[in-house]
Amino acid sequence: MKNTATLLITCPDRKGLVATIADFLHRHGANILHADQHQDAENNLFLMRIEWDLDAFSIPVAEFDAQFAPVAARFDMHWQLKLSGQRPRVAIMVSQYDHCLADLLHRHKSGELACDIPLIISNHRDTEALAAFYGIPFHHIAVSKDTKAEAEAAQFALFDAHQIDLIVLARYMQILSPDFVTRYPQRIINIHHSFLPAFIGARPYHRAFERGVKLIGATSHYVTEVLDEGPIIEQDIARISHRDEVEDLIQKGRDLERIVLSRAVRWHIENRILLYANKTVIFN
Amino acid sequence: MKNTATLLITCPDRKGLVATIADFLHRHGANILHADQHQDAENNLFLMRIEWDLDAFSIPVAEFDAQFAPVAARFDMHWQLKLSGQRPRVAIMVSQYDHCLADLLHRHKSGELACDIPLIISNHRDTEALAAFYGIPFHHIAVSKDTKAEAEAAQFALFDAHQIDLIVLARYMQILSPDFVTRYPQRIINIHHSFLPAFIGARPYHRAFERGVKLIGATSHYVTEVLDEGPIIEQDIARISHRDEVEDLIQKGRDLERIVLSRAVRWHIENRILLYANKTVIFN
Amino acid sequence: MKNTATLLITCPDRKGLVATIADFLHRHGANILHADQHQDAENNLFLMRIEWDLDAFSIPVAEFDAQFAPVAARFDMHWQLKLSGQRPRVAIMVSQYDHCLADLLHRHKSGELACDIPLIISNHRDTEALAAFYGIPFHHIAVSKDTKAEAEAAQFALFDAHQIDLIVLARYMQILSPDFVTRYPQRIINIHHSFLPAFIGARPYHRAFERGVKLIGATSHYVTEVLDEGPIIEQDIARISHRDEVEDLIQKGRDLERIVLSRAVRWHIENRILLYANKTVIFN
Amino acid sequence: MKNTATLLITCPDRKGLVATIADFLHRHGANILHADQHQDAENNLFLMRIEWDLDAFSIPVAEFDAQFAPVAARFDMHWQLKLSGQRPRVAIMVSQYDHCLADLLHRHKSGELACDIPLIISNHRDTEALAAFYGIPFHHIAVSKDTKAEAEAAQFALFDAHQIDLIVLARYMQILSPDFVTRYPQRIINIHHSFLPAFIGARPYHRAFERGVKLIGATSHYVTEVLDEGPIIEQDIARISHRDEVEDLIQKGRDLERIVLSRAVRWHIENRILLYANKTVIFN
Repeated sequence: MKNTATLLITCPDRKGLVATIADFLHRHGANILHADQHQDAENNLFLMRIEWDLDAFSIPVAEFDAQFAPVAARFDMHWQLKLSGQRPRVAIMVSQYDHCLADLLHRHKSGELACDIPLIISNHRDTEALAAFYGIPFHHIAVSKDTKAEAEAAQFALFDAHQIDLIVLARYMQILSPDFVTRYPQRIINIHHSFLPAFIGARPYHRAFERGVKLIGATSHYVTEVLDEGPIIEQDIARISHRDEVEDLIQKGRDLERIVLSRAVRWHIENRILLYANKTVIFN
Repeated sequence: MKNTATLLITCPDRKGLVATIADFLHRHGANILHADQHQDAENNLFLMRIEWDLDAFSIPVAEFDAQFAPVAARFDMHWQLKLSGQRPRVAIMVSQYDHCLADLLHRHKSGELACDIPLIISNHRDTEALAAFYGIPFHHIAVSKDTKAEAEAAQFALFDAHQIDLIVLARYMQILSPDFVTRYPQRIINIHHSFLPAFIGARPYHRAFERGVKLIGATSHYVTEVLDEGPIIEQDIARISHRDEVEDLIQKGRDLERIVLSRAVRWHIENRILLYANKTVIFN
Repeated sequence: MKNTATLLITCPDRKGLVATIADFLHRHGANILHADQHQDAENNLFLMRIEWDLDAFSIPVAEFDAQFAPVAARFDMHWQLKLSGQRPRVAIMVSQYDHCLADLLHRHKSGELACDIPLIISNHRDTEALAAFYGIPFHHIAVSKDTKAEAEAAQFALFDAHQIDLIVLARYMQILSPDFVTRYPQRIINIHHSFLPAFIGARPYHRAFERGVKLIGATSHYVTEVLDEGPIIEQDIARISHRDEVEDLIQKGRDLERIVLSRAVRWHIENRILLYANKTVIFN
Repeated sequence: MKNTATLLITCPDRKGLVATIADFLHRHGANILHADQHQDAENNLFLMRIEWDLDAFSIPVAEFDAQFAPVAARFDMHWQLKLSGQRPRVAIMVSQYDHCLADLLHRHKSGELACDIPLIISNHRDTEALAAFYGIPFHHIAVSKDTKAEAEAAQFALFDAHQIDLIVLARYMQILSPDFVTRYPQRIINIHHSFLPAFIGARPYHRAFERGVKLIGATSHYVTEVLDEGPIIEQDIARISHRDEVEDLIQKGRDLERIVLSRAVRWHIENRILLYANKTVIFN
């Protein structure tokens, strides 16, 4: 595994941006491994992801901010620097359905997900043994109408204690409070078991069955204040037929959920996602 | 091309249905070519499509109704008999976008669609030359708020004069009146350029772009009173990315619309579609 | 779960087949739940899968053979009767890659696979803990050029002792001897990590990468004497790009392998597969 | 439509490449619209596509070569400059099947393909009327074993007379001579009706049917000396079942062929394809 840095930039589109950034990195000996950019003409926006090898890079990580600041200021950049050496710390929240959790843990174990998973939180005990098998600390926090506030307070405490960077809702069937959502902007990924914006809300498979659609879908997205309205990260579909009962939709949907959620988590962890205008740009 | 008959049956599910139907056909020398059935447990419904070779069949077509009536009555069947010798007569309605029309006409010419197309109706003249190339009579009927009733009256007259069995809306951008829709139940197929029930109504590609979906879709369906709420016949999707502008969605969508509409028309023509509870059963 | 019987029939296509079979079942009070058939005109072959509720069925299972024999004889049928009460017994063989095994075990635990799994056999110890977590007895049988015969003898002994109906090769990287293959005809399912017949044999992902294909695939099939030439049960593909290294193909391929193998196992277990002419008919 | 220039670059990967190119363009006032690059670590290769608006660009097109030459020389670049103002000139060759031709001509007419099509060449007369409808000159050149050399000579004469940049084989059923192929390197695109490298050569649908595959495919590729071994540009697949006869495969395949060929032609015309090591890099 190479020791790399990834720079994510969003700013107004202006001439000379690429030249300036490329020149800055080149002057400091950066060996660029990947560079991808996107221009949104409509919003006059420039978005870039650029990754380079740190070995020959002459700027110590600690001094990067200071040295890059003038460049960033000149172009009104929003920017983040991500280091491959600093693995993101991910918390997984789950209720009773364990297929997404089992999938994420297996991918993590097999090296597909370059992150640390310091904890799993559930409002049930069903997945405790699974967590134990993969050696991830499991925290049971029951949630009821009356205890929701305390439950979330306990969750926040755990996130803080473990310096969590990303919260993955792997079929966590509780609606988060506005306080929760605003506390972790663009840091909560959810899997919704429909092809959004179709079938927002509860029981999407049942409603898809009733409507008689010929394809079912799943959608991974960042969680925002409005339910199922956050920026979409990934979607996929599966074909169904009149032979499929609701149970078959649910079973076929599990495969979609697993794959669609795991892609979103992976792209977030690999710093491939940029957000603007409630949309995602995926550099992959 | 074989000379065949196809029987479409819908009735309450009861024991002995298959045995009775198969026995009836067998006793009259039918050589069954295809048989497909579906049971909807929830609605206790039985649906069947059965096709046989007419050559060795001992019942003259003219007498089939009389002879099958007692069987049908015993099981409360809704049934239709379709003969391969009687090609359905299809009218295509189109506005300015000609990609679906060009696709249907090419498929018809190449033998994919076993129907007659006695006329094309458009509220514009853009597709007149295309119709002429394929040798289909073209009727221009302008439509405005004030003339809608007369326009539809003229359309009805043409449908009657040409004994039209099926009306295909190949990107016909006028909303049909309730009178029109109720006049041709389960005989109007429309293509909607979204993955229904997402983006019902106008400008679906623009709204898909604004929402930031990762897949776009198209849906063919029977037209009913409520806009875009009719029974879905077929759907398909295409993957898009942040690099795609609205124009790219529209262009990629054209390929979806062509294929999704042509499948629906083909299945209808081949008597593969049964309807119930605002859903379709596709026997293919 | 209903208590059902499934009859699988293959025979020369002749008039009266459906009528005779349906009549036989009806006379004995069978409530047919699913019936599907296929006629292969080219080979004049008739294939049928018919499933009925045993509750009201008047023939005791023990007497079915005797009573159905005359019907079968009259039409030269090859036929099998499968009972939902008799869960097939499946052995899984695996080497070091555990993604297919983990997937099958999770599906089994969640009820997707209606079978018993009395044992897992591996020529490595990597998956021993995984087997233990799911409570499946794990047998390590090392295999080398010199010990292959003894190893297979030990495997046969286990299959016999546990009355194994189906052997699933979940990325088992040893080539089975002709003796092994002939011993379990149409009872060994393998997953090959390419879109057969492309890239038969070793290192398919590497060869796909070298050839510069734009899609990779996976294929599940029954194992026959000739390597990767057995009847194909299921295939699926994933899109790749020039950005994907061999490692990315391998990672994307794992998702294909999981799904393509699990579908094949499920369809086999649910008695949905009929074979002829080195092809499969999937009734689903 | 903007007036743009596109630079395609292939060279050994070295530090400072992006900085140098971006600086060169910036110094001359280029407003970069799209930039995409790829590094092949294995082959230490750098590939780039960069498109900019010519309006504010200070180098006259005629002088670009002279001014860019030193930069190119310093990095051992293979490079081409493409101007949106110079539409590529495309010749289409076809035999009797007209579905790909009809599709390409309709896309061209609707503006999807930014090229000129000065001629269609066929060894049959079946598509003459179609060519006439779209206003493209049609040349009938019969081909037989004995006349092949003269036929190709006549074809070369037409290509020269019309300054053809790209030759599209839209189901042209004659094998080109080695002389033909070497004469137009990376300038001949063919559609093969299988998922290469499966079913190379003749009658792929028949062989796919015999093999019992569950998916059929189509592949567009550049033509090289070895039949069906050229660099793959695009592939796609469609699902089939045991209900599909060879005729159904052929019909379903037509939709694949249309789409897979049209994508390849479009990407070539838009200068999105770079070749190396018998592979394509698609910048889209």
